[in-house]
Amino acid sequence: MPADDNKALVIAFYEQAFNDYQPEQAAEAHLGERYIQHNPEAQDSPQAFVGYVHWLRGQFPDLRLDIKRAVAEGDLVVTHSNLHLKPGDRGMAVADFWRVVDGKIVEHWDVIQEVPEKSANDNTMF
Amino acid sequence: MPADDNKALVIAFYEQAFNDYQPEQAAEAHLGERYIQHNPEAQDSPQAFVGYVHWLRGQFPDLRLDIKRAVAEGDLVVTHSNLHLKPGDRGMAVADFWRVVDGKIVEHWDVIQEVPEKSANDNTMF
Repeated sequence: MPADDNKALVIAFYEQAFNDYQPEQAAEAHLGERYIQHNPEAQDSPQAFVGYVHWLRGQFPDLRLDIKRAVAEGDLVVTHSNLHLKPGDRGMAVADFWRVVDGKIVEHWDVIQEVPEKSANDNTMF
Repeated sequence: MPADDNKALVIAFYEQAFNDYQPEQAAEAHLGERYIQHNPEAQDSPQAFVGYVHWLRGQFPDLRLDIKRAVAEGDLVVTHSNLHLKPGDRGMAVADFWRVVDGKIVEHWDVIQEVPEKSANDNTMF
């Protein structure tokens, strides 16, 4: 699949799982049977992804994902997002790397950092 | 410039500044006169970048950057790296987003997370 199609797929998946809060449907439609997870808080498999979203949403029922930009090349898609755990918080800066093969997301890495209160510049983290 | 050329430029810049420890030369060759910084610990401008590298290297003289993958599309390049502050440490997971215009890096965002001791999977963060 072209990189642009992979990018659209990843964004649709991420929005559906986190903002529409339909992780089962998102995983069923877009995750591979084998889903390799590099987030140290999560386990492999689509089932573990669904459980992770429910766990996170259980802690933060009003969480909101704001995808700021996406970059795609070959089988990789990168998203750069601001994840708000509660309305109005500064939230987390999140970089996700997704590997897409034959129209399914098969591998995921991320890097997560709390947005600090103060900054040495006026540009925000995004 | 094609995205592949932007990617090669970013990798050369990053390696030269951090691993060869030549931040002045790297900035002179590859940063734009206006360099917009989104890392909340750093200020805008090539001069501030050079100062930041010296500050970091001053604290961690043996730091080592290991670029694991890079993804480029249009004017954006993303690198996913393991930054070791001391030999043998688990280090930091770092995602950098770089915007390249006319052969110069003009904007930078990053997300940084300490690699934890334990993980829910066996895949490492990379």
